[in-house]
Amino acid sequence: MKFEVTILGSSSATPIFNRNPTAQVLNINEKLYLVDCAEGTQQQMLRFDVKASRIDYIFISHLHGDHYLGLVGLLSSMHLNGRKKAIKLFCPAPLKEIIELQLKYSETTLHYPIDYVFTDATQKGIILENQDVFVETIPLDHRIPCTGFLFRQKKRLRKLIKEQIEGLDVPIAQYSALKKGADYTAPDGTVYKNETLTIAPEEPKSYAYVSDTLYTEKYLQQINSATLLYHEATFLHDMLDRANQTHHTTALQAGEVAVRVNAGKLIIGHFSARYKTLNELLEEAQSVFPNTELAVEGKTFIISE
Amino acid sequence: MKFEVTILGSSSATPIFNRNPTAQVLNINEKLYLVDCAEGTQQQMLRFDVKASRIDYIFISHLHGDHYLGLVGLLSSMHLNGRKKAIKLFCPAPLKEIIELQLKYSETTLHYPIDYVFTDATQKGIILENQDVFVETIPLDHRIPCTGFLFRQKKRLRKLIKEQIEGLDVPIAQYSALKKGADYTAPDGTVYKNETLTIAPEEPKSYAYVSDTLYTEKYLQQINSATLLYHEATFLHDMLDRANQTHHTTALQAGEVAVRVNAGKLIIGHFSARYKTLNELLEEAQSVFPNTELAVEGKTFIISE
Repeated sequence: MKFEVTILGSSSATPIFNRNPTAQVLNINEKLYLVDCAEGTQQQMLRFDVKASRIDYIFISHLHGDHYLGLVGLLSSMHLNGRKKAIKLFCPAPLKEIIELQLKYSETTLHYPIDYVFTDATQKGIILENQDVFVETIPLDHRIPCTGFLFRQKKRLRKLIKEQIEGLDVPIAQYSALKKGADYTAPDGTVYKNETLTIAPEEPKSYAYVSDTLYTEKYLQQINSATLLYHEATFLHDMLDRANQTHHTTALQAGEVAVRVNAGKLIIGHFSARYKTLNELLEEAQSVFPNTELAVEGKTFIISE
Repeated sequence: MKFEVTILGSSSATPIFNRNPTAQVLNINEKLYLVDCAEGTQQQMLRFDVKASRIDYIFISHLHGDHYLGLVGLLSSMHLNGRKKAIKLFCPAPLKEIIELQLKYSETTLHYPIDYVFTDATQKGIILENQDVFVETIPLDHRIPCTGFLFRQKKRLRKLIKEQIEGLDVPIAQYSALKKGADYTAPDGTVYKNETLTIAPEEPKSYAYVSDTLYTEKYLQQINSATLLYHEATFLHDMLDRANQTHHTTALQAGEVAVRVNAGKLIIGHFSARYKTLNELLEEAQSVFPNTELAVEGKTFIISE
């Protein structure tokens, strides 16, 4: 099952030439999930050929402009482009008020519904479950209420071993139970252990999106063993005081998080505009967690094939 | 005195790759005036080397997103970049509520004041007068309250003809009156006509920014003889019905406006995303008003040197 993320923006609050503020799009089994939607996200989607019409879910981590100021424009364009199907929007509650105020004064009545699900930054919780994934909020520690999002693939069913099943003439009615792990009792009373008839599915993969936050203990356990971890890394570690003051993380700390939670791979992003080049940030994170990459705009990271 | 406009965005509601929604920046005597501020304006300013710190005045024509959704991000960046001096914002009144709501939820207190001047789309009025220009609102006919903006250079003083002044030993105390057009009476009672002692200054130049509107009579007289006229031209004339329905103008109509008001030159912009190339729009406007150019992003049009 396809499970991948494409970076649309990698900059923090002030945009710099050739770096846009934060947005990402996940493709999970050919459905698109937009994660944060900074100003310019529509242009980035055009640039990297991401079809807005294919987005069904939007997640907004918090209400700093560099994470949501592209949303009203995107919602308006979806409307102008004839969208009819609902969009599910996971966000802090006040975003509804912001969106509705702007639609009111532009005298726009969207031709499709927005189904709001409000996030709670004080505790983790599952906010979405569909056939492919669970999505949980990750409570973070930023200056205003802020959550990350943990995307966990659902555990898939065991796969039948065709030759064994056919050899034993297992009735089709039993297949569903076998896929769920049950043993098979033949008409003659013989019990066949499930492991002899099925193969375990691949372990579910996960993607942890850790948005703006101070480096704290509180979210580590939840993102343990994430297949792919995105972590903000606004500053180099020589600016730790500034990071603490603004409730952000340094590249070194992002690397430490990846080590501590035993992540499969780390992507760092949300770079301060003061860094014209990003090599130092990358090297700093790699010094503790070698399997780190930069959130390069337009780049797609595969979580599961 | 420098008086020029640089195009930052030329697209209408939905952005298309390589065309951004509406924004322009005027340089009048080395002060910058931003006119509309669609999403992505900050990136365009970075691209064309327009310094946000030099902007003292911002004008918003109306509250459709493609004319203002970049504003909150720009105001935030000015704040983060240490701005202290006030910004003067000319806009429909509800924009204050929109901005304040977004600042409230991002828990941002700007380090500089915004001085709001609310526009009235029902009648023309002078909203700014400084040492260089008058700015008037142009009431337009769009689906929601919308104004254009007319920038008129102030009439400058007459220039003294040095040799004449010196030859007659005119006292310095008289210079100011002479520059304003007074005659000079010498100690012996001889009256010297002003025209013999001074040269008329260049005629004041003007720039008319005609934002989203139906083509109507009502704004024509006000923009008569504009040195440079920017007029929206969302559609080709074969889409006149659509233009009327959405309260927009066709390229042919924009050309007709330029003819009727005897404009010096016409720039057309606010192109629908349906037009991948713009030649047909240009040719249509030029068929009635040859001195027409496209609002090409990054291009600067000189109104007065």
